Amino acid sequence: MTTLPETTARLLITCPDRPGIVSAVTTFLYHHGLNITELDQHSSDPSGGKFFMRLEFQTPSMDVSRPALAQAFGEVVAKRFEMDWRLSFAADKPRMALLVSRHDHALLELLWRWQRGELRADIPMVISNHPDLRESVERFGVRFEHVAIDAATHAEAEAKMLALLAGQTDLIVLARYMRILSGEFVAHYPSRIINIHHSFLPAFVGADPYQQAQLRGVKIIGATAHYVTADLDQGPIIEQDVVRVSHRDELVDLKNLGRDLERQVLARAVRWHIEDRVIVDGNKTVVFS
Amino acid sequence: MTTLPETTARLLITCPDRPGIVSAVTTFLYHHGLNITELDQHSSDPSGGKFFMRLEFQTPSMDVSRPALAQAFGEVVAKRFEMDWRLSFAADKPRMALLVSRHDHALLELLWRWQRGELRADIPMVISNHPDLRESVERFGVRFEHVAIDAATHAEAEAKMLALLAGQTDLIVLARYMRILSGEFVAHYPSRIINIHHSFLPAFVGADPYQQAQLRGVKIIGATAHYVTADLDQGPIIEQDVVRVSHRDELVDLKNLGRDLERQVLARAVRWHIEDRVIVDGNKTVVFS
Amino acid sequence: MTTLPETTARLLITCPDRPGIVSAVTTFLYHHGLNITELDQHSSDPSGGKFFMRLEFQTPSMDVSRPALAQAFGEVVAKRFEMDWRLSFAADKPRMALLVSRHDHALLELLWRWQRGELRADIPMVISNHPDLRESVERFGVRFEHVAIDAATHAEAEAKMLALLAGQTDLIVLARYMRILSGEFVAHYPSRIINIHHSFLPAFVGADPYQQAQLRGVKIIGATAHYVTADLDQGPIIEQDVVRVSHRDELVDLKNLGRDLERQVLARAVRWHIEDRVIVDGNKTVVFS
Amino acid sequence: MTTLPETTARLLITCPDRPGIVSAVTTFLYHHGLNITELDQHSSDPSGGKFFMRLEFQTPSMDVSRPALAQAFGEVVAKRFEMDWRLSFAADKPRMALLVSRHDHALLELLWRWQRGELRADIPMVISNHPDLRESVERFGVRFEHVAIDAATHAEAEAKMLALLAGQTDLIVLARYMRILSGEFVAHYPSRIINIHHSFLPAFVGADPYQQAQLRGVKIIGATAHYVTADLDQGPIIEQDVVRVSHRDELVDLKNLGRDLERQVLARAVRWHIEDRVIVDGNKTVVFS
Repeated sequence: MTTLPETTARLLITCPDRPGIVSAVTTFLYHHGLNITELDQHSSDPSGGKFFMRLEFQTPSMDVSRPALAQAFGEVVAKRFEMDWRLSFAADKPRMALLVSRHDHALLELLWRWQRGELRADIPMVISNHPDLRESVERFGVRFEHVAIDAATHAEAEAKMLALLAGQTDLIVLARYMRILSGEFVAHYPSRIINIHHSFLPAFVGADPYQQAQLRGVKIIGATAHYVTADLDQGPIIEQDVVRVSHRDELVDLKNLGRDLERQVLARAVRWHIEDRVIVDGNKTVVFS
Repeated sequence: MTTLPETTARLLITCPDRPGIVSAVTTFLYHHGLNITELDQHSSDPSGGKFFMRLEFQTPSMDVSRPALAQAFGEVVAKRFEMDWRLSFAADKPRMALLVSRHDHALLELLWRWQRGELRADIPMVISNHPDLRESVERFGVRFEHVAIDAATHAEAEAKMLALLAGQTDLIVLARYMRILSGEFVAHYPSRIINIHHSFLPAFVGADPYQQAQLRGVKIIGATAHYVTADLDQGPIIEQDVVRVSHRDELVDLKNLGRDLERQVLARAVRWHIEDRVIVDGNKTVVFS
Repeated sequence: MTTLPETTARLLITCPDRPGIVSAVTTFLYHHGLNITELDQHSSDPSGGKFFMRLEFQTPSMDVSRPALAQAFGEVVAKRFEMDWRLSFAADKPRMALLVSRHDHALLELLWRWQRGELRADIPMVISNHPDLRESVERFGVRFEHVAIDAATHAEAEAKMLALLAGQTDLIVLARYMRILSGEFVAHYPSRIINIHHSFLPAFVGADPYQQAQLRGVKIIGATAHYVTADLDQGPIIEQDVVRVSHRDELVDLKNLGRDLERQVLARAVRWHIEDRVIVDGNKTVVFS
Repeated sequence: MTTLPETTARLLITCPDRPGIVSAVTTFLYHHGLNITELDQHSSDPSGGKFFMRLEFQTPSMDVSRPALAQAFGEVVAKRFEMDWRLSFAADKPRMALLVSRHDHALLELLWRWQRGELRADIPMVISNHPDLRESVERFGVRFEHVAIDAATHAEAEAKMLALLAGQTDLIVLARYMRILSGEFVAHYPSRIINIHHSFLPAFVGADPYQQAQLRGVKIIGATAHYVTADLDQGPIIEQDVVRVSHRDELVDLKNLGRDLERQVLARAVRWHIEDRVIVDGNKTVVFS
C-alpha cells in the first residue's frame, strides 16, 4: 500500500519464542493509536527457539511522543519478553558511507538509485584507496575522500578512515573495495558493514572468484551480499543471485555478466538493510523482504 | 519450524481494513492457549482498503473444543470486524478430485507428490473423458471414473460428473482436462476449481497456446495455474512460471519444456490451496506462500 | 576466445536450405586465409525451409582487400545459393541514435555500457521530445537534440527528426521514447529500430502495461525488446526477461522492478544487434547469442 | 527442424585448432550426400587452442555404407587434423544402466521420461544396494538387480556390479546412489558415469549438502550433474540449476525443493549425453545443448 515516509515507523524484535508475543506487541501499538501496515514474523523453532518480528506502522494518530513511545515499549513489552529491539522512524534517514576501489559499477548503481530516491539514506562520504573515481562521485554532490593504503600503511590508513567515519555513519557499504579490512576495523561496525563478493558463496572465497569459477567449469555464476565479519567471506549472507554461463564464456564474459549481478544483488541488500528488513541471527540472516 | 499436522490449525481472514484487527485476533488466540507459528497479513490500501490475514497456530494447549473455538471466534472477533473467515484443522484433510484427459504428466506429478505425503489431501477419484489412464491411476490405489463427453453429450456428461462429485470433494483440479466446463458446472465450485493453462496468461488464451507462442516468436514460454471462472482463462491467477526458449525450439520442444513447467506450477498451486495459503480477492489472489 | 576487434569480420547469411551451403562458405573463407572463430547455423525446416548462418572470422592472413572479398563472395558463393547476406568488419563501428522521453534509466544504462566499451558503436546523437535529459547526455560527450512533439505537430516533428538522422545512423534505439512513430517514419529504418516495451509481450500491448499487469493479478512481469514495425508492439521480438512479483507489489513496485528488467533486456538486445547476432525472419528473429 | 532418428547421424570432434577444419569436415560430408542439420563449434583459444565440433546430419542420400563412411572419414579428414572423433547413428541407441539407493525421485523421473520416448536409450538394468525399489522399477518392464554393499563387502559388491554391467552398458547414471564408487570401478567407465550431487558445486561437497547449506544460511540452493572421477564431487560439471530459499525454509523444505531440482538437472544432463552433446575437456565440459 502507499504509505508516506514521514508517518512510517518500524519495530524490529528478536526474543526467546513463547506464547503471547504477537498479542502483546500489536495490542501495545493499537492502544497508542498506531496502525500496523506490515507484519512479518519468524520462529526458528516453536519449542525453545528464537522469535523474530518486523512491524511497519503508521503514526498520524500516535498519542505520545517518539521518545515516550520507545520508553513505554521498553518498560511494558520488551522487558517482559527479554527482547532485543529497535524502533526507527522512516523520516530519520540512516547514514551510509561507501568504500570503493577502482571498479565503478557497484558504486554508480548505488549512487544512481540513491539519487532517484530508491535508497532512503544520507551518504556522508565515499572513501576510496584510489583517486580515480573522484569526479564520478562529486558529480552526484557527494563528498569524496582518498585514503591510500598498502601493506606497509594498512593500520595507519584504517585509522584515518575510522577517524573520517567516526560519528558520521550508521552503515558502511563495500562497493567493490578490494582491500581486506582488519578485525579491529570490523569490530567498530558489527553487522553494519555490507560487502558484495563476486561469487556464489561459499563457493570461491578469496581472490579472483571469476577465475576460480572458470577453472572449475561451473555452468552458473553468482554474487553474494553479506555482512563483514573478522573471517573473510564468512559473514551472514543477506542476498545472492546467479546467472547461467557456458563453455563459450571466457573470463572477460564472466566478469561482464557478474558485474550486472553484483549491481543488482548489492542494491537489494543495501535497500533491505536501510528499510530495517534484515535481522542477523548468529551467522545467518532473517530477511523480511 | 517443525510442526505436527495433528496439532496445527489455520485461520484465513478477509475484512475491511481498520486499526486493531491483528491485536484482537492474536489476543483471542493467546487467551485460548494457542501458539501462533506463522502469521501473514496484507492490506490492499491502508485507508479504506481490504485486510487479509493467515495464521497458523498450534493447538496442544487449546482450552476449548474445536467447535467452541469457532463459535467464540465468530462471536467475539469476527462479527466486530465484519470478517469473512475460515478456521481449519490440518488433521482434517481436504478432498481433491482430479479431472484429466489424455496427457498424463500433470496427473502423475500430483499423484506422485500425493503418495510421498507432499500434498496432504484425500483423493476421492480421478475422472477422465478418456479411458486411457485407468491403469496409471489405479496403480496408486485411486478410483478412476471414465465419463465420455462430446459436443452432443456435454450437458449430460457434466451432470454425470456432478453426480459423481456431489458431497465427495472440496476441490477440483483440472490436470490437463481438455474440455471447457460450462458456467453451470463452475458455479457449483466457486474458487474451488484449479486449472493449469499451458501459457503465460494473459498471453495466448484459448486453444494451442504453444503453437501461438511459436508463431509469435516469444523468447520465453510459461504456464499458469488459476481458479476457473465462467470466462475462459480469465480466472484469478495463483501461480506462474516460465522457461527460456529460442529460435531453435520447434513446437515439440516447446511442448516438452512446457510440460515440465506445467507439472511444477500446478503442484505448487494445489499445495498452496490445500494449505489454505490462497485468498481470492475479486479477480486476483493473495498468496501467503 | 580472445579476439581483437581490429581483425574480426562477420558474415550473416539467409538463403533457401539445400545441401552444400556450409561447405561452400567455409571453403571460400579458408581459401582466402580467413580463420573461422564462431559459426552458428539454423535451418527452419530441412526440407524446403530457410537456412540462416552467422560466421565470425579473423582476417590477419586475408589474401585480398575487403571490397575484393565481398565481391568474390557475392559472385562465387552468394549467387549460387540465392543468399541474402551481409559482410561486416568489427572495426567499422555501426552508428546508433537514441530516442528518449523523460525516463532516464534505459538511456543511462546504454550510455554507461557504451562508455565502458561494452557496446561497440558510435552514438551520433540523442533525440528527445523533452529537454530534461540534456545535461545527463552531454556529460557523456554525446550530442543532444530536443525535438518537441505533440498531436498537432507530429508529422512536422518526425520530419525534423528524419532530417537530423539522415545519413547519420544505422540503428535507432527507443530507450523509453513515449510517442508512437508513424508508419512513414518506421519505413525509413526497416528492422533497424529497437524498442523496449515494459511488458512480457504479447501480454499487455499498448499503454500502461504495468497497470494492466497489476489489474490482471499476474505473478510475473516482464520486458520485451523488439524491432519496431508499423503495427504497435507487434514487431519481431529480440529478447525478453521476467521477474517474480506478488500481491504485495503495488504499481510503484512493479515500475521499480520493471525498470531494472528494461535496462538489462534492452542492453542485451542492442548489443546483439550491434554484433550482428540477430536475423529477422518474417515476424520472428533468429538470435545467435 | 523435424528429423527422423532413423536417418540422423552425429559426429563429435576434438582436435588442435587450426584453419580449414570446418571446411574439410563439411565438404567431406557434402561429397557423401549428407545434409548437415545442426553444427556447433567451439575454440578454446584461436591461437594454439583446442577445437570442438558437433555435427548432426541426415543420411537418406548417403552414398556409402556406415562402416565405409567411418573409414573414409578417419583416413581423409581425421588423420590430417589429428582428431579425436566419434561417429554415431541415432538409430543405434546407447545403453544406460541406472544405480540407485532408496530415494526414488531421480530414478522415477528418468524412467518416466524414458517411457515417454524423451530419452532415446535402452536400459539394460537398474542396480540398487537396497531391495526397496524393485516393484517400482519392474513396473516399467526394466530388470532390477539388488547388490547389497557395506564397508566390509565393498570390493566384493563392486566386483559383482562390474560383472553384471560388463558388456551391457555404455553409460552409468547414479540416480541418488549413496555409496562412493572406488577409483577402480570408476576407471572402467571414464567420462561415462553421471552423478547428481544435491548442491551447487563446488559449494558443499561430500555428505549432507542440504544440511551444510542450511547451516551456512545461503539464499539459493542448487543441484549439479557431473561425470564421476576418482576425486569425490570434483568431476567435470555437465549441468547445474538453482532455486531460491529463505530463512523460513527448514531442512525438510530444502530437501523438497532440491528434489525437484535434482530431477530436472539429472534428466537434462542424461539427455545431452545420450544425444552426443557433451565433450569432456580436461576437468570441464563443452555442452552443445
